Amino acid sequence: MTQDRTPEERTDPKDPAEVWRSLSLLRSQRPLVHCVTNYVAMDISANLLLAAGASPVMAHALEEVEDIAGAAGALAINIGTLDERWVESMLAAAKAAVEAGVPWVLDPVGVNATAYRLEVAKRLMGLQPTVIRGNASEIATLGGGGGGGQGVDSTIESFDALDAAQELARKTGAVVAITGAVDYVTNGRELVAVANGHELMSRVTAVGCALTALTAACLAVRADALSAAVHSLVLMGIAGELAAERAQGPASFRMQLLDSLYLLEEPQVRETARIG
Amino acid sequence: MTQDRTPEERTDPKDPAEVWRSLSLLRSQRPLVHCVTNYVAMDISANLLLAAGASPVMAHALEEVEDIAGAAGALAINIGTLDERWVESMLAAAKAAVEAGVPWVLDPVGVNATAYRLEVAKRLMGLQPTVIRGNASEIATLGGGGGGGQGVDSTIESFDALDAAQELARKTGAVVAITGAVDYVTNGRELVAVANGHELMSRVTAVGCALTALTAACLAVRADALSAAVHSLVLMGIAGELAAERAQGPASFRMQLLDSLYLLEEPQVRETARIG
Amino acid sequence: MTQDRTPEERTDPKDPAEVWRSLSLLRSQRPLVHCVTNYVAMDISANLLLAAGASPVMAHALEEVEDIAGAAGALAINIGTLDERWVESMLAAAKAAVEAGVPWVLDPVGVNATAYRLEVAKRLMGLQPTVIRGNASEIATLGGGGGGGQGVDSTIESFDALDAAQELARKTGAVVAITGAVDYVTNGRELVAVANGHELMSRVTAVGCALTALTAACLAVRADALSAAVHSLVLMGIAGELAAERAQGPASFRMQLLDSLYLLEEPQVRETARIG
Repeated sequence: MTQDRTPEERTDPKDPAEVWRSLSLLRSQRPLVHCVTNYVAMDISANLLLAAGASPVMAHALEEVEDIAGAAGALAINIGTLDERWVESMLAAAKAAVEAGVPWVLDPVGVNATAYRLEVAKRLMGLQPTVIRGNASEIATLGGGGGGGQGVDSTIESFDALDAAQELARKTGAVVAITGAVDYVTNGRELVAVANGHELMSRVTAVGCALTALTAACLAVRADALSAAVHSLVLMGIAGELAAERAQGPASFRMQLLDSLYLLEEPQVRETARIG
Repeated sequence: MTQDRTPEERTDPKDPAEVWRSLSLLRSQRPLVHCVTNYVAMDISANLLLAAGASPVMAHALEEVEDIAGAAGALAINIGTLDERWVESMLAAAKAAVEAGVPWVLDPVGVNATAYRLEVAKRLMGLQPTVIRGNASEIATLGGGGGGGQGVDSTIESFDALDAAQELARKTGAVVAITGAVDYVTNGRELVAVANGHELMSRVTAVGCALTALTAACLAVRADALSAAVHSLVLMGIAGELAAERAQGPASFRMQLLDSLYLLEEPQVRETARIG
Repeated sequence: MTQDRTPEERTDPKDPAEVWRSLSLLRSQRPLVHCVTNYVAMDISANLLLAAGASPVMAHALEEVEDIAGAAGALAINIGTLDERWVESMLAAAKAAVEAGVPWVLDPVGVNATAYRLEVAKRLMGLQPTVIRGNASEIATLGGGGGGGQGVDSTIESFDALDAAQELARKTGAVVAITGAVDYVTNGRELVAVANGHELMSRVTAVGCALTALTAACLAVRADALSAAVHSLVLMGIAGELAAERAQGPASFRMQLLDSLYLLEEPQVRETARIG
């Protein structure tokens, strides 16, 4: 059974009122978001989705992954702690999502780090992801340039991956989001920048992975993928700014990040969204 | 080596003094609780067990799962992120527990969501679980009715699964616990309701799974399964109520939940237990 | 590509100024630390490494584990939730690290609990670990004596495993660290004791595993393994003492532990280090 997705007018991805509307829809519709994600990211991804109003489900067994992906409002696939069996499940889930018309997001964690991850990411990219979200090293690698870095943290600025992102968007048809101090989202023609966020976000593991899950959640309630990606970045960024005001270090920041997203109110979104 | 389990008089499952006694026993005996649980639930389950006084061990390798289950005070099996290999381990662990006289709890996460989970849960139910704990959709599904819902969150009220729970208890010989705004525990003849808890518990991932681990811990120190199940629900519920007083949102609630259980004192248990 | 490791003068492992220097190097060099660790420990290990300044990467696929281990500044291997496939990955990662001159740490979680874990730990010990870190039951078991205990928590004092630790160090060539109320580190000839820490550390799951990751991080920036092991114990212990002052229970302690490590300043390290 596929989620009932109302076709929408194309929305202005830079309108803060639409960001708020996405969060409101998450809270009222509580969409099911299927995550096939890495072991490190599962806890924070599930908790972030719940804090945003969505209903997370983590599942990877080949025996059920198609059932769940096809019934979900959206799917998030993250290659962070992949292995051969999980890759099979990711491919099956992505195929099932596409067949059922369920939007899905690819998070190519560490694709710049090993040949294996690059090969897996390429296979997944061939399955029509709705959105691809990564850091600059990851997007630069997927876009065909060298990404730099040996681990899962980026060693270049998001700005430096802009050309690669646009190329990648044109090649795959996906919306591509690069996260960093400034985030960029493009569909290959339009480009939107988001300047919300806080540097402590890079000091908590799997915040990027959890953001990918939130992007999927926004896709579950909005038909316009460019807007949905932007909205998830703005919501996460604003929550991060509010969290930083109350945090002493990265662990209290993590707690405050989830609480802030849960408590987020319309004026905060409208007044602090920085979309350009 | 099996845990030394003193046979006890049948206790009154509605007596708050007995709830306190279970917590005291956990703190003094520090029973070993073996969990074969899902990836999302491992962290919070292990931390909740430690906060309650128990000693958690997570293990799933076929090469050792029988050794550990047989030596533990109790076993908790949770099918949340199952796959073929983990199912084998779950079956082996449950069999080893039963052979060694170790009580075990089944948590049929998302059994309403896929045919695969239902099939696995049925195989596990055939291995004499001491307690089955689930939300209303899950228990309704196992009891033979339709459970509703597509994910791992329940879409019906606990009350609506009462008949299914009693039927399930009679069929399997297990004590069955349905958790929700009001929790119900039954052995097929008696029915106990627990009204402790807070709605934020549904906004933190794997709280139900962690509760299952706590139920196992109570079974490790109490011979009366109906009482042990009730006690774990009351302890978790009271900790949740105390946590909600100090929390701003779901992430601070999670922290306060564990701290509250760790700090719980006798008067709080005696005065706020709501068992009917 | 192997990390650029400057050969250093042998440092005095009891000098608090060197402890501070290790933390400073972590913060400035941000070394890549590869963890093949258990499911329960991944979140806290990655977050602790980030709080200390390092860059964690979790990876276990046979297709990439050698690439990552060989390129990392250090490797941590933890057998906490092992199975047959993970063991293969651990062996491959350790071999690749040794070949590339990358130091690595073995954490033999629960090796006293099952024959399977002991067999796996012995195979890993044959691959020249730089440091072996465990609790007293684990080190006593590896040193050839009986370790006691049935789970993953130690049932003997660290002092009682001292002979076993020294024997193990001589047999393997590794530095051996026993953690407990007092920690001991030995290379088979010298013995260093560390008296920092707090009892709440034993009430949070995987704190020992996270410490192992921190030991690996220190090895990535310091050539002297005895010193690196001591430094990681002192840093963790001081962070624990600071955390305990601000914590109510184990969950707030966990948060404060990571925040305290992130915020740690030179005078705190110099004035509170207890190394003998």
